[in-house]
Amino acid sequence: MDGPLVSFLSDYGHGDEFVGVCHGVIARGAPGACVIDLAHGIPPQDVRAGAVVLRDALGYLPAGVHLAVVDPGVGGARRALALRTATQERVLVGPDNGLLLPAAERFGGVAEVVDVGDSPVRLEPLSQTFHGRDVFAPVAAALARGAALAALGTPLAAAELVRLELTEAELHDGELRAHFVRVDRFGNVVLDATGEQLAQLARLGSPLALEHADAVRPLRAAGTFADVAAGELLVYEDAWGWAALAVNGGSAAALLGASPGHAAVLRRRQS
Amino acid sequence: MDGPLVSFLSDYGHGDEFVGVCHGVIARGAPGACVIDLAHGIPPQDVRAGAVVLRDALGYLPAGVHLAVVDPGVGGARRALALRTATQERVLVGPDNGLLLPAAERFGGVAEVVDVGDSPVRLEPLSQTFHGRDVFAPVAAALARGAALAALGTPLAAAELVRLELTEAELHDGELRAHFVRVDRFGNVVLDATGEQLAQLARLGSPLALEHADAVRPLRAAGTFADVAAGELLVYEDAWGWAALAVNGGSAAALLGASPGHAAVLRRRQS
Amino acid sequence: MDGPLVSFLSDYGHGDEFVGVCHGVIARGAPGACVIDLAHGIPPQDVRAGAVVLRDALGYLPAGVHLAVVDPGVGGARRALALRTATQERVLVGPDNGLLLPAAERFGGVAEVVDVGDSPVRLEPLSQTFHGRDVFAPVAAALARGAALAALGTPLAAAELVRLELTEAELHDGELRAHFVRVDRFGNVVLDATGEQLAQLARLGSPLALEHADAVRPLRAAGTFADVAAGELLVYEDAWGWAALAVNGGSAAALLGASPGHAAVLRRRQS
Repeated sequence: MDGPLVSFLSDYGHGDEFVGVCHGVIARGAPGACVIDLAHGIPPQDVRAGAVVLRDALGYLPAGVHLAVVDPGVGGARRALALRTATQERVLVGPDNGLLLPAAERFGGVAEVVDVGDSPVRLEPLSQTFHGRDVFAPVAAALARGAALAALGTPLAAAELVRLELTEAELHDGELRAHFVRVDRFGNVVLDATGEQLAQLARLGSPLALEHADAVRPLRAAGTFADVAAGELLVYEDAWGWAALAVNGGSAAALLGASPGHAAVLRRRQS
Repeated sequence: MDGPLVSFLSDYGHGDEFVGVCHGVIARGAPGACVIDLAHGIPPQDVRAGAVVLRDALGYLPAGVHLAVVDPGVGGARRALALRTATQERVLVGPDNGLLLPAAERFGGVAEVVDVGDSPVRLEPLSQTFHGRDVFAPVAAALARGAALAALGTPLAAAELVRLELTEAELHDGELRAHFVRVDRFGNVVLDATGEQLAQLARLGSPLALEHADAVRPLRAAGTFADVAAGELLVYEDAWGWAALAVNGGSAAALLGASPGHAAVLRRRQS
Repeated sequence: MDGPLVSFLSDYGHGDEFVGVCHGVIARGAPGACVIDLAHGIPPQDVRAGAVVLRDALGYLPAGVHLAVVDPGVGGARRALALRTATQERVLVGPDNGLLLPAAERFGGVAEVVDVGDSPVRLEPLSQTFHGRDVFAPVAAALARGAALAALGTPLAAAELVRLELTEAELHDGELRAHFVRVDRFGNVVLDATGEQLAQLARLGSPLALEHADAVRPLRAAGTFADVAAGELLVYEDAWGWAALAVNGGSAAALLGASPGHAAVLRRRQS
């Protein structure tokens, strides 16, 4: 796979043919390209979860064309974007609903952006419900083949783009007021608190209390799962630099009944 | 990925090693090939669903070798096939249970077909339960490497092949009598009615009634999800040209309790 | 995909970005490599299931670098390994928890092994919870690029490595005392009995009885699913050479309430 790299994130799942068909369209448009499936299990239509995953993961991929489709407004008035980041010249392609910007900001922000909704490379007839196939994949393929952004759409100003409000945890008076952001396969629950905030709240090994949904539970600040007893709840800095909740050998999400958006408070506790 | 293209559809799912092992067998047999996973989430042993997905998706893939395995009769008397289509010279490989023919018919029908059950390239010892690995993947790899059909099996007549009966919706007297065909990840329910039949029944925006399982529900003909209110049921022409039911921001399958094969009637309604 | 081959097995699932990020790290470290996803649906933290799948599947893959990560002890004291097998010079990379050894033994055992926990190619800062990304993928990429084992870690003796206890069925007095090992997508239940043991117990077509969880059920020894009536329970030699339980057109796992580790006894029965 020495060809140009295209990464691909979506909420299409792996059960249907949506991802495979987009691969087909990319292979037709850019025969030498290497496509990496970054993630397709973003919860359906959860733009926020997609934006967070793309932001955190992008730096681990080679620079290339980064296709991202979580698109509840498909077929409606939302714009379709291709943008280039200020550093590393990464090119991001996807809907204008906030999905791309948190990732772009990790690479200096948006240096150039075009509206590709009417791109000359889009497939015709255009469906109203599958722009991943008809708009975004053909544009990504053309970019992988070396097309310039300006040849694929009409210029926009970065200030015009739709932005998401992402919550941020707050630390004061020995309390970390946070929200659940996402849950992974192992039942680990990622918070909107940074590992730094966690370190300010508690040293490794310290006893804490977690308040969530009218319940208060003991937990422990730890470096990794195996630092606590089997079945014990812990909070740790995850591999992306975020504070996260886990149960050693179990599922924190199942224990807590955690859903994205829920508020939670971590407090210091006497051991 | 400049090598020959192999696409791969199955009901193997992504949880087990079935798909990965077939990739391995293809890589051994055709080291330069590029494999695109079209879909592996076909419901287990649902030949009809596999046939429909392959038929609708194939045109979006580059021409190549198209491996498809949904094979409830594995190890029994059913034949194993490799065929070439009349147009685009696509090569399809899979069991003789009707899975391949609807796709082949989109490309002019079957120009040549051979029985590869005893193919010289099949793996030995031959298992009785995993012909994807032992028969179909080695045959697909040999074809990707450039082998002729005639070198891999014994000739058959196209008229001998097993055909599926696929239902078709009927429109008369302002009623569209249809069946549910499949459900996708977003809970959209595809009907066996075409977008043309839907357009004949109702203009965009028209109020309709859906009768299914002794319930009658209002719905609206629309172009895309966002054309109706959140939570509202709609019927639209999907990205493959079929009429489909959806709920904006929700799941039509969950709302309706829809299963493949169910009958449903769409009628005009006073607004 | 003419580049070096890397296969990848894990319990990461396909819902999150874990697999995609590891692909990105491999693409950065070994731009020409071809990555085959062998399986990522190993039940979370089930080292035994991962070991069994890797052992059975590896021979179907081209020789290359074989990355395997099922790693409940990540961030703790367990070592990280890269090893070379005595035959075929396959290179296996993963945690020192028994995951790799059953596969290595199929290829003559361990010819050379190094501890790569402090490998010069690992990513910094090192996370405590995602060594797939930070340790194992970079090591696999370096090996795919042609690095020597000795350049990536410190030598270990094969005798020092952690081994799993895998159960084995016993056959005596016309009884096959076995355990459930794993369940696949189709609900087939693999036993720790070999096809040879099954053949010694019963000829094809023979009636048997299955005792499990205080229930006794009739079943039949058969070659494949279609050899028994729809809905009937059978035991067959599966595609990997193991005895397995299935229901023709149904799910043996659902019928039996089977979980890995359960004991079961198969006995001869008068027809």
